Amino acid sequence: MLEARWAEGKFVCIGLDTVIEKLPKGIKVTMSEHHGDYTSHDYMLEFNKQIVDKTHDLVCAYKPNFAFYLAEGADGLHVLEQTCEYIRKVAPQVPIIIDCKVGDIDNTNEGTIKYIFKKLNADAITVAPYMGHISLEPFLKLADKGIIVICKTSNKGSAEFQNVDVKEPFRVPQKLYRVVAEHVSSVETWNKNHNCLLVVGATYPEELAEVRSIVADMPILIPGIGAQGGDLEKTLRAGLNSKKQGVIINSSRGIIYASGGSDFAERAREETLKLDAEIKAFLKTA
Amino acid sequence: MLEARWAEGKFVCIGLDTVIEKLPKGIKVTMSEHHGDYTSHDYMLEFNKQIVDKTHDLVCAYKPNFAFYLAEGADGLHVLEQTCEYIRKVAPQVPIIIDCKVGDIDNTNEGTIKYIFKKLNADAITVAPYMGHISLEPFLKLADKGIIVICKTSNKGSAEFQNVDVKEPFRVPQKLYRVVAEHVSSVETWNKNHNCLLVVGATYPEELAEVRSIVADMPILIPGIGAQGGDLEKTLRAGLNSKKQGVIINSSRGIIYASGGSDFAERAREETLKLDAEIKAFLKTA
Repeated sequence: MLEARWAEGKFVCIGLDTVIEKLPKGIKVTMSEHHGDYTSHDYMLEFNKQIVDKTHDLVCAYKPNFAFYLAEGADGLHVLEQTCEYIRKVAPQVPIIIDCKVGDIDNTNEGTIKYIFKKLNADAITVAPYMGHISLEPFLKLADKGIIVICKTSNKGSAEFQNVDVKEPFRVPQKLYRVVAEHVSSVETWNKNHNCLLVVGATYPEELAEVRSIVADMPILIPGIGAQGGDLEKTLRAGLNSKKQGVIINSSRGIIYASGGSDFAERAREETLKLDAEIKAFLKTA
Repeated sequence: MLEARWAEGKFVCIGLDTVIEKLPKGIKVTMSEHHGDYTSHDYMLEFNKQIVDKTHDLVCAYKPNFAFYLAEGADGLHVLEQTCEYIRKVAPQVPIIIDCKVGDIDNTNEGTIKYIFKKLNADAITVAPYMGHISLEPFLKLADKGIIVICKTSNKGSAEFQNVDVKEPFRVPQKLYRVVAEHVSSVETWNKNHNCLLVVGATYPEELAEVRSIVADMPILIPGIGAQGGDLEKTLRAGLNSKKQGVIINSSRGIIYASGGSDFAERAREETLKLDAEIKAFLKTA
């Protein structure tokens, strides 16, 4: 699915990090024109639907972060489920990434799989590497699902453990994120089913370039453009693979909260188009 | 809360890892004697309630693993919510640990906090260290909540990253789990509010002894007793702190699935008593 989107020149992923308190005031106006009483969770769903309506022809993926839906409990899960259903309906060609950075012992991971892949029917999930590939095998063996491993995260302070120097026999010390990238790209362990991807933040372009050189053409999910301040040009220069593809450029708040008015979906489209145009311009000159 | 339970000689934590497919056949019989039609989620809740009824006078904590409830979607979250409410009602002295091994950028963590601490009103949460303490600050600043950081996990293959040798200036290489233990126990960074705990698996008693020597009297949550095969005596010898306390000995499947018949709650109590007696016997001789 990703390769088909890249072939169409689509690299933008929209992070559907929908928070009730941040919903544009405009959403209520739009809905009250048509309907009666709604709960705040209906507004969350309506917000997502309108964003999807206005952007699905431009994106390579949608990435709802699970925590923002969990925040609303069972009602929030319903919003997430209906959002995924809606994306499937109006844009079946666009993969859905559930961002939840999970990872536990094997029988526990089966619980997560039941929800994320059986109930939501998502295409990909983000996981944390700390427990190792043996415990993550229930995820890794899902050959038709993308398993996206956090490697060098976009946040301030990600160096605390990710950048420690790892000493192995017969080689100079390597930063831990490099070791994670090596392991995850190995077809002997993590990537037997060629379904692994990595997360590297746009806020660390030098590390992104290093990871790219380690993992060959493996797809990399790159958050940190937009609200977190990542530089797009540096990111593309560092992150594109040998086919000038292989990147999922995620923006969440910078797109979905572009306007607090009733034009929020239009403005989300404009921000997506702007990012899309910047990527296309870079690709032309690259 | 933990110190009060330890003072009473209670060290057993029951992992409420409740899975519909594993519910004892007995649960249906027990319920159908009293009531009419039930969904499988009602049986999940009833199972938890009966386990809690029969064990709450013996335990130092309950630890539901979030993934098993998420497996059932919104209905599962309701079961988790009602389970936590029930524990609060019948055993307000027993802390509730939500095991979910999360960790994301700061604004995302707020979503998790809204559910785990505001909705469930849990006492503690498990988190993964990989993104570093700055991103976990929203958790760490909750001074009245326990933040339990996975350090050396009980699973096979946990060495893949947790046991890499970390080279730092002016010292011999240290295993990563040791570096994590050092960081998490530092009152300058992670443990400013003295609310951090660690997870070390009973399946690695040598590593547990090392972590204990690094973190002084910090409480350690120890899974891996029971179904995972950890040795209790080695675990206690390695894990107890200077006050002969400081450990939360978790067993999940070994207790809650001790019987597949209608005596499951009685048998769970017997297994808890057995573990409790073994701990008491060790403490007498220690």
